[in-house]
Amino acid sequence: MRREITGFSNPLLKEVRSLREKKLRKRAGLFLAEGLRIMTEAREAGFLPEMLFRVKDREVHALEIALESDVLAAGGDVIETSAEIMAKLSGKDNAQAVVGVYRDHGTELDAIQRESAPIWLVAQAMRDPGNLGTMLRTGDAVGAGGLILLDDCTDPFSVEAVRASMGAIFTQKVVQCRWEEFVAWLRTGPGQLVGTSLQTETDYQSAKFTSPCFVLTGNEAQGLPEEYEAQCDLLVKMPMRGKADSLNAAVATAVMAYEVLNQFRRN
Amino acid sequence: MRREITGFSNPLLKEVRSLREKKLRKRAGLFLAEGLRIMTEAREAGFLPEMLFRVKDREVHALEIALESDVLAAGGDVIETSAEIMAKLSGKDNAQAVVGVYRDHGTELDAIQRESAPIWLVAQAMRDPGNLGTMLRTGDAVGAGGLILLDDCTDPFSVEAVRASMGAIFTQKVVQCRWEEFVAWLRTGPGQLVGTSLQTETDYQSAKFTSPCFVLTGNEAQGLPEEYEAQCDLLVKMPMRGKADSLNAAVATAVMAYEVLNQFRRN
Repeated sequence: MRREITGFSNPLLKEVRSLREKKLRKRAGLFLAEGLRIMTEAREAGFLPEMLFRVKDREVHALEIALESDVLAAGGDVIETSAEIMAKLSGKDNAQAVVGVYRDHGTELDAIQRESAPIWLVAQAMRDPGNLGTMLRTGDAVGAGGLILLDDCTDPFSVEAVRASMGAIFTQKVVQCRWEEFVAWLRTGPGQLVGTSLQTETDYQSAKFTSPCFVLTGNEAQGLPEEYEAQCDLLVKMPMRGKADSLNAAVATAVMAYEVLNQFRRN
Repeated sequence: MRREITGFSNPLLKEVRSLREKKLRKRAGLFLAEGLRIMTEAREAGFLPEMLFRVKDREVHALEIALESDVLAAGGDVIETSAEIMAKLSGKDNAQAVVGVYRDHGTELDAIQRESAPIWLVAQAMRDPGNLGTMLRTGDAVGAGGLILLDDCTDPFSVEAVRASMGAIFTQKVVQCRWEEFVAWLRTGPGQLVGTSLQTETDYQSAKFTSPCFVLTGNEAQGLPEEYEAQCDLLVKMPMRGKADSLNAAVATAVMAYEVLNQFRRN
């Protein structure tokens, strides 16, 4: 249905704004994605928002018209509002002209078809939403099936993570589980678990990766716990030519994932 | 000299806090680096802060004692303060226990010894301080000589960029200049300029890189301008297997830089 919100005190605004908080996001089972680019990625991946907020009285891109039409056809709401109300909704002055409220689509390990993709990314206790979103974006690029989040990771459905994913939150499977659950599931089928580590002499380019390959990255500050490393099928290290002994977590994941992809491309 | 600040109204606090703003940072020729880890990297690279602020009355790491001793020996100030004042200085509640005020050490193109390193990173109109800092960190890891910032980039000496660099702001040369200056300088000596582009069919793994290799990455949203691409010696692309057509800028730089390093390692 198409409707309009003109007042700042409309209770729906408060509800939608509350989706910026993890607890309230979880409770509602909804999350926010902002901007036409990401929302178009979502639409192409088969995801439509339940509510689409748009700033009225401005030039409209053809992709936005198509998106709105799909939302209405699917029984969703298109809600017109002013730039001022949108800024309030977004909590920032330079708000996007369109914002969507989507149903949380996290999945379970058992719903994953591990052989549907040659690469899966796995992140442990990832704290930075930018890193997490960037991993999703990288996963999309290397043809990964999804991102498995272990232990206490930052919420993949936060506005910051969704933004950094550039839409990959909709094209990658996202699973959240404990390490023990993951390992138990992993060992019920094929799958090579590869960790990056300072405790190995194996160069990441001399290792042999097999599909499906699960690329495991540890927490930004601590890296992987030793007991997690012990469970890996393969530990590798990237050359470090400088003073530092580690890369940014999203960068390390990408360098590893591209090496795995490159090996698979050659075979 | 060792001294103490006990009052929130001490004018030095305001001065130091002002270094969070680019304009005032430039004017003072100073910048902030927070935390013992980054400050120790700085010390090992030969950089000491002119002023070191520290929270008093807590357990002190041996590296901090060594750092303070070096600062005092070099004629710098060690300023003791309370956790509350440090929080005010940092603008956040969970402030680091040590913060350093360093002299800005940006350099000029002409001071660069291009043959001192096989790889140089070049970023154009980079807007995100996290991306810029991450590029510095990656540069350190691949043994790059430094990061050359073209056109209007975010300030490499901002607190966010320094933090994301994890100390590489002190180990990498940092140059800021215009594109025209860079190209003119580049062509006065050896150097292969490599850009990543959607306009090429050359796979980044089939290209041949030569040292010194200048890896050029464009703005996060727009990528490289066409006229910049036209000046590159080589344009390459990375495989993109998903829906998206680009990687995060810091990720793209890292994937490229590791490929260049890997080729050089084989030869």
